[in-house]
Amino acid sequence: MAKQPKQLDELFHEGLKDIYFAEKKILTALPKLAKAAQSAELASAFEKHRTETEEHVSRLEQVFELIKEVPHGKTCPAIMGLVEEGQEIAKEYKDSPALDAGLLAAAQAVEHYEIARYGTLRTWAKELGLKDAVNLLTRTLDEESKTDTLLSKLAEKSVNREAQLA
Amino acid sequence: MAKQPKQLDELFHEGLKDIYFAEKKILTALPKLAKAAQSAELASAFEKHRTETEEHVSRLEQVFELIKEVPHGKTCPAIMGLVEEGQEIAKEYKDSPALDAGLLAAAQAVEHYEIARYGTLRTWAKELGLKDAVNLLTRTLDEESKTDTLLSKLAEKSVNREAQLA
Repeated sequence: MAKQPKQLDELFHEGLKDIYFAEKKILTALPKLAKAAQSAELASAFEKHRTETEEHVSRLEQVFELIKEVPHGKTCPAIMGLVEEGQEIAKEYKDSPALDAGLLAAAQAVEHYEIARYGTLRTWAKELGLKDAVNLLTRTLDEESKTDTLLSKLAEKSVNREAQLA
Repeated sequence: MAKQPKQLDELFHEGLKDIYFAEKKILTALPKLAKAAQSAELASAFEKHRTETEEHVSRLEQVFELIKEVPHGKTCPAIMGLVEEGQEIAKEYKDSPALDAGLLAAAQAVEHYEIARYGTLRTWAKELGLKDAVNLLTRTLDEESKTDTLLSKLAEKSVNREAQLA
């Protein structure tokens, strides 16, 4: 029995499940990162992003609804690897002046993962004519990009300088 | 016996090992992606990026030399997950009109992983006063960003349209 080849709508649905899993994983990781951070500025950036991430989860649930699917995550080994890396750094660099630099690196790798995913999903949503999904995905993509820019500034301006001077 | 806390130079060395492993993994994955791609344009983009990736490996070896370390990779679960994802898509979507869209998504996730890593390494190299390393890392970072932009264009302009029309 030959299976029908999969189509773009199926790819879109699978991509949604992937990033839904990732966002939920990030939601549990961010408070740990905030707790581990040395600088108050970095801790506050992680806390703020946690609030945004709750909104991202809710927007994804709206996109699932738009394509008449129940929100479900699908285990994604890449994001698990990235999140675990942040937790390892928190442990290995606990008392190091380079701790925040390491946490920022892990967090930016996660942001870029999300930027890639949301960019792809938005392109597909456009092609599938899912206008409301495009709007929801664009809002999240913009927030992820802004967070990445903020983390880059924190990395360049303060955290690494402290690490070098230590 | 209390260990000395790790410093930024150690974080930099570990980051180098991580991206060195990733680039080597990508080097073996790109010919498979090129072979799997449906459109000649996408296959050619993957082939061109393979040539660039050889140069990225060589630049990383120069950076290892600058910090007087022997080039060694360190297994990175995140990049393994991303590369495997591309191979799974090549298999699962083999006869689907959405194949190239899926391959592009996987390739862009890899590019963003690299953009995050090279951005971080460059920031650290600056802080560590490694001027030559900053130049080498910047050249690679620029090429990764250009590749991502090219893949975005391919995704928007042709591949996804074909997928929708199929």
